[in-house]
Amino acid sequence: MHSEFAEVTRELAKYIVQTRYEDLPAAVRREGLRTLVNWVGAAVGGSHHEAIDRALAALAPFSAASHASILGRGERLDIMNAAFVNGVSSHVLDFDDTHLKTIIHPAAPVAPAILAFSEYRNVAGRDFLNALILGVEIECRIGNAVYPDHYDRGWHITGTCGPFGAAAAMGKLLGLSEQKMVWALGLAASQPVGFRESFGSMNKSFNPGRAAHNGMTAAALARAGFTSSDGMIEANRGWARTISDKQEWREITGGLGKHYEARLNTYKPFACGVVLHPAIDAAIQLRNQHGLRAEDIERIELRVHPLVLELTGKTAPATGLDGKFSVYHAVAAAIIEGAAGPKQFSDRAVQEPALVALRAKVIPTADPSIEPQQVDCSVVLRDGRTVHQRIEHAAGSAASPLSDEALEAKFLGLTEGILTSQQARRLLDTCWDIERLPSAAAIAEAAVPR
Amino acid sequence: MHSEFAEVTRELAKYIVQTRYEDLPAAVRREGLRTLVNWVGAAVGGSHHEAIDRALAALAPFSAASHASILGRGERLDIMNAAFVNGVSSHVLDFDDTHLKTIIHPAAPVAPAILAFSEYRNVAGRDFLNALILGVEIECRIGNAVYPDHYDRGWHITGTCGPFGAAAAMGKLLGLSEQKMVWALGLAASQPVGFRESFGSMNKSFNPGRAAHNGMTAAALARAGFTSSDGMIEANRGWARTISDKQEWREITGGLGKHYEARLNTYKPFACGVVLHPAIDAAIQLRNQHGLRAEDIERIELRVHPLVLELTGKTAPATGLDGKFSVYHAVAAAIIEGAAGPKQFSDRAVQEPALVALRAKVIPTADPSIEPQQVDCSVVLRDGRTVHQRIEHAAGSAASPLSDEALEAKFLGLTEGILTSQQARRLLDTCWDIERLPSAAAIAEAAVPR
Repeated sequence: MHSEFAEVTRELAKYIVQTRYEDLPAAVRREGLRTLVNWVGAAVGGSHHEAIDRALAALAPFSAASHASILGRGERLDIMNAAFVNGVSSHVLDFDDTHLKTIIHPAAPVAPAILAFSEYRNVAGRDFLNALILGVEIECRIGNAVYPDHYDRGWHITGTCGPFGAAAAMGKLLGLSEQKMVWALGLAASQPVGFRESFGSMNKSFNPGRAAHNGMTAAALARAGFTSSDGMIEANRGWARTISDKQEWREITGGLGKHYEARLNTYKPFACGVVLHPAIDAAIQLRNQHGLRAEDIERIELRVHPLVLELTGKTAPATGLDGKFSVYHAVAAAIIEGAAGPKQFSDRAVQEPALVALRAKVIPTADPSIEPQQVDCSVVLRDGRTVHQRIEHAAGSAASPLSDEALEAKFLGLTEGILTSQQARRLLDTCWDIERLPSAAAIAEAAVPR
Repeated sequence: MHSEFAEVTRELAKYIVQTRYEDLPAAVRREGLRTLVNWVGAAVGGSHHEAIDRALAALAPFSAASHASILGRGERLDIMNAAFVNGVSSHVLDFDDTHLKTIIHPAAPVAPAILAFSEYRNVAGRDFLNALILGVEIECRIGNAVYPDHYDRGWHITGTCGPFGAAAAMGKLLGLSEQKMVWALGLAASQPVGFRESFGSMNKSFNPGRAAHNGMTAAALARAGFTSSDGMIEANRGWARTISDKQEWREITGGLGKHYEARLNTYKPFACGVVLHPAIDAAIQLRNQHGLRAEDIERIELRVHPLVLELTGKTAPATGLDGKFSVYHAVAAAIIEGAAGPKQFSDRAVQEPALVALRAKVIPTADPSIEPQQVDCSVVLRDGRTVHQRIEHAAGSAASPLSDEALEAKFLGLTEGILTSQQARRLLDTCWDIERLPSAAAIAEAAVPR
């Protein structure tokens, strides 16, 4: 190991301990705010999914303390269990955020940890935002160091890097010393969560929720002096060398405090993995431009990046969660319903006869010349015509990011039916206003229906 | 994948769900009893280690429920946190048990989970023992499938296989259906814990403790219908193929209910990893046979299995926990103090000048012709004489197992100073008597000092 990268864990710990809110550039703070707004909307939006009912039924009996809120609901749990449930909730619709270089969903393991903690101990809004940004920064940098090998091998990278983010953010709020932050990162490293085989089941959203729980546990133990190794990230039989064949140390420690991965977060316009977004974007555009109806369609030909078929090749999804891993279903839903939100990835939708019929007409072909954010879509009509749409940068991608207005519209759509429109507006304003809040707990309070 | 091994996770789930106490051969039940006795002694013995003080300080504020006991102490926590702490406690002295084929420490992730649960819901002693044996069986079988590649790569196999054992045992007590047991194993698979880099720090004992917590969480969620994939162990991007280059499926499902890995558990006579036991055994024998004194010794030459130096090559351990990974310290302590118990692996011992001086005279050489349970030890004396001891099967190994009497002596030694001798005797009798107890909670009750 080159000496420059000899102390990756300690360098990270030092950076986390030293970085103040005032040190963050305005653009990074602004992206942190957008990350928060998007995450709160996703957490409230997912809060009535069956997975949340089941998680609460399972865990509430073992959680007598009730320091923290379940967003979008009335229950209260101890802070670690609350963080877990809010983490699951914010990811269960697959409608959250994406760090495109790693496909990490950055907020889900970090935000619920520090929000629950903010209900237990007073945390000023600025400190909350600083911790959120640091947590996202750390998990994405560690992800960069091992992606793509680590992901290709089968790990759900959000669940394996997420504990670092949660430990960093929670450790920052706990005011850990450098040595204790080293231990917190070490204990977080010891708890990677999740494999890609879980995709399509509730286990997928379990992963970031448990990552939040793991990172909090790591930071709380380290605070009390529970020790770890000093080099768990970089050591020979530590995290990165065991869990990946690729380790690019400079991705972790290079340019700390100068270049920000947290600035690169993106927000999903569609309720599924970003790999499907170009195809959905194309399908919705063609539908709207040409007034397409399912009965007029002979077949839908797609040329897609190879990962689309690898990740979303399920031809006959059985549940809404499964439907998120079916390019066939997603494109059929986009054509027929003109959208790809939670309703299009419900158990109802994947069983809808018209959707089942149309998905059989979707013909995707893997094409290595197609980039991940691109797609080439041709719809052949029964009358012999063909309509065509090529997408260069799918909606929501780095080159075509969601505007603040689009983020707000997404937020209001997600919270509809759970919060009144007045409550939703108030929650949204509270999120945008976090830097001026004396206590970040105001977000949790405003996210509980009255 | 050969069709015979197409449904590893489901085959295991079916076996766990179907197996009754009455189905277990007497010898397997007997070994389960010995596993229990050994584990309870280790948990009480470790309960006043600094690591436990710190874990309790960290977690108690987040655990208002108090359904379950911390063995050897007065505190009570919710059952998952209690299981975690008792799991750490039972492993922190490295004085527990070993499945020699995998170096898994079988009881630490499983026993604390079901003991804490037994304080929350009534569990008959026979059901407890059945669940303990099944948990041990499942984790060791899964370990066999991936050992040694998985361990060589850097994983702490007790922490990565432990969640399966805890989930199986807890799921058995919860009466899960086959499908829910499949999900419990899937959620357990999603939570491997620990890397070998943690050895020498408190993080090592964190791993089995967290494995218990993880398996309990998995089983509780599955019971409430929280779904996972159906093939998390064997699928392409599931546990075994992601976490290891070796997958020997027949080790998992071959001969279920006929051949028992749980029968192969062994119990440590010395408070460190089994890899050091032959050297310690030889040193103590030479000391006692020849009345060796440190000042008479020129040097101590050891020919050891290569793993001894790989795992325990620390020449200058800084803490008692670190000392467990130093063949130099262990052999010096065995010569000077005639033992290798918790006192010899304390912070005091590794700083003791006489021990520090003698450890510099220990000269181990890796020799591939030496088996793991063997050692060849020559002590060269200042007067020119050499005394020699070869160990073929170290004390406590499969060929030289601890007798029930030796287990009892170990138990009484571990509990000394924590329980009165009367309480310790009563606790020991309660453990041996588990098959006749109406409630396994009696063990936890008897393990709390009055």
